[in-house]
Amino acid sequence: MHNTRMHNRSDQPMESPVPKIDISQVPERQGSGYPSPFAEAASARIKQALGDAGGLTDFGVNLTRLPPGAWSSQRHWHTDEDEFLYVLSGKLSLVTDAGEQPLVAHDFAAFPKNRADGHHLVNRGTQMAVYLEIGSRHALDRCHYPDIDLHWDGAVGVYAHKDGTPYP
Amino acid sequence: MHNTRMHNRSDQPMESPVPKIDISQVPERQGSGYPSPFAEAASARIKQALGDAGGLTDFGVNLTRLPPGAWSSQRHWHTDEDEFLYVLSGKLSLVTDAGEQPLVAHDFAAFPKNRADGHHLVNRGTQMAVYLEIGSRHALDRCHYPDIDLHWDGAVGVYAHKDGTPYP
Repeated sequence: MHNTRMHNRSDQPMESPVPKIDISQVPERQGSGYPSPFAEAASARIKQALGDAGGLTDFGVNLTRLPPGAWSSQRHWHTDEDEFLYVLSGKLSLVTDAGEQPLVAHDFAAFPKNRADGHHLVNRGTQMAVYLEIGSRHALDRCHYPDIDLHWDGAVGVYAHKDGTPYP
Repeated sequence: MHNTRMHNRSDQPMESPVPKIDISQVPERQGSGYPSPFAEAASARIKQALGDAGGLTDFGVNLTRLPPGAWSSQRHWHTDEDEFLYVLSGKLSLVTDAGEQPLVAHDFAAFPKNRADGHHLVNRGTQMAVYLEIGSRHALDRCHYPDIDLHWDGAVGVYAHKDGTPYP
């Protein structure tokens, strides 16, 4: 939480931790933690962890910017974490087993945990795309990547091949 | 989930449950479940439960519209549920123990569980305000209302006076 100079009801200035957060003070994180060569596709994504900045622990809220050509992530699905996204601006292609769907501002999509249908977003447009993504948190979540030799098991805590061998 | 006619990668039309949801198909719910006379202030708010529509269970995501003069809720805080809000359009006043803060489009605020500082939003402007609100879910959550004689205990499941007597 950030301290912000504000006015109370009697209009006296006071210093107080307040729930509104200055978005410019939330650090930007670029790229993913995927091992090579899987990191490349998501290397241009930029996330700001708004929920963390606000002290939340039950779920994460990221404000994410995806430049033209970038992927949100490798296509994946979670065993124990719900995911939700809401598009703020730009155009995105949502890729699932069913194919591709266009998403524009005010479109949203939901990915219930343990639905075995990988998803990701690709910016095939010419402008920056911006969206909110919300995900619950589960220490023992596993994440499946149907297109590539990659697996995540929260109990282990490192990216691994599908046979369980950890990536370096 | 809704079935949507779409095209797969080989451009053949197919019927498939897909993660993108048609927002116009998500039911609107107006007003609150507060007992009289506390329901009046929030009687004009309109919510669409986007997360529920997408089959999510770990957290709720509501798209909420608040007309001029309306309150989001009675001022409250949760013992066991994190809350987050992100403003999409309009102007809102965020009221907490510290006083009032203006919120406009792209402002966000976070309310960690068990922080004993009641909050709500009031639309003091002249236009409809629209925001996303996200909240985790905990069956035994309790909700405190510092300004009024109201209490919620998830273990009981009805609104009560602060002394525990249920409202009719």
